[in-house]
Amino acid sequence: MTIRGTVHVIGVGPGDPELMTLKAARVIAASPVIAYFAKRGQTGHARRIADAHIGPAAEELRLEYPFTTEIHSKDALYSSGITAFYDECTTRLAACLSAGRDVGLLCEGDPFFYGSSLALLDRLGTDFRTVVIPGVTGMSGGWTRAGIPLVRGNAALSVLPGTLDAGRLAERLAVGDATVIMKLGSNLPKVRAALQETDRANEAIYVERGTMPEERILPLAELGETAAPYFSLILVPERRQ
Amino acid sequence: MTIRGTVHVIGVGPGDPELMTLKAARVIAASPVIAYFAKRGQTGHARRIADAHIGPAAEELRLEYPFTTEIHSKDALYSSGITAFYDECTTRLAACLSAGRDVGLLCEGDPFFYGSSLALLDRLGTDFRTVVIPGVTGMSGGWTRAGIPLVRGNAALSVLPGTLDAGRLAERLAVGDATVIMKLGSNLPKVRAALQETDRANEAIYVERGTMPEERILPLAELGETAAPYFSLILVPERRQ
Repeated sequence: MTIRGTVHVIGVGPGDPELMTLKAARVIAASPVIAYFAKRGQTGHARRIADAHIGPAAEELRLEYPFTTEIHSKDALYSSGITAFYDECTTRLAACLSAGRDVGLLCEGDPFFYGSSLALLDRLGTDFRTVVIPGVTGMSGGWTRAGIPLVRGNAALSVLPGTLDAGRLAERLAVGDATVIMKLGSNLPKVRAALQETDRANEAIYVERGTMPEERILPLAELGETAAPYFSLILVPERRQ
Repeated sequence: MTIRGTVHVIGVGPGDPELMTLKAARVIAASPVIAYFAKRGQTGHARRIADAHIGPAAEELRLEYPFTTEIHSKDALYSSGITAFYDECTTRLAACLSAGRDVGLLCEGDPFFYGSSLALLDRLGTDFRTVVIPGVTGMSGGWTRAGIPLVRGNAALSVLPGTLDAGRLAERLAVGDATVIMKLGSNLPKVRAALQETDRANEAIYVERGTMPEERILPLAELGETAAPYFSLILVPERRQ
């Protein structure tokens, strides 16, 4: 009987390759198979971050998203397409693991903090040994680069996905906690409106691709665009009581 | 004129020394002066985590808390004592920096996520060049070791310090978001009561010193103690709507 392989789900941090952990670098270098998500025509952020550590003999499993242009995530086509895609990715990983090969699955930030890799972990279930390596989140990378220590002392923190509906976003922002808004994309106009409605737009800072070479940091009020890339977030300082 | 030194505020991660970033390890090794907080009679968590990387010729600035037993943080004696302590620490750091020496200030987890080092950064102000290196938070270390991917998809996350008063804790818990409760210490009975009041105590998981050799993880319902160490937190999964 073949001994089954282990899947290491490896958080590679927010973007700067030096913000990867020592453990992530070691496990990547030792992985005979490296799997990662990527958009069509692109290297894939996690693959790019991990580049210097991937062994020359490693097999790469490129898991390429099936959509070339952005389909709204509430669209039925997106839902069925993404389900089929994750199923197929899982089959490819399981084939390696069943053959006794360890797989390193790269994941931006921290795998247990909104990681796409969770969809594959759910599907792999308990059939294979799984080891998760935490990483520096994009949120930590973002507030560090912006120079904003968002939470200290007795402050509470809210992390809100921009995918929440307008009413819930405004309701949470009205509480006044220090807030990080993730998953902006095409949700940016809705998020901006909720910040304005709760009188918090003027203090909001926009961080795009924090710690990466293409990093942009500016007050949200100065941002002209109506959409933002996936690797962007908004920091809202605590409202003084 | 002497060129002033730079202070590097270095996040060393949640406890496992291998969960330090490559950047933290490099900067620690290159720092002629290493500063860290410690309790009387103890090595100091950050010092212990960084141990393998501190250069043999490095000068160590041990910043020892003035209290041997725990004084409640709302006590006036605590407030005046801790202020004088942070002032004195800042004077010691500033002396090194003014003499042109770089200082590496070690910080558990991520410096901008409830870091004690913020008290020194505030005091140093803009007199010296400051570089902050983000780290893996204790929160990420905790949910990874507990095997609980607390936030995914459209879930919101609340991070609450246990120092909040009972009413505010219960109010936030009633919302039903995935929640991490930090800073337990002597606040544990109050936190437990707020979880019970909002019917969330049964799902709560207690994590003590996550990723460290002394790690303990168990359902909160099975925890007998009425106080918890500083390096502990409670994870509360999202309430199903």
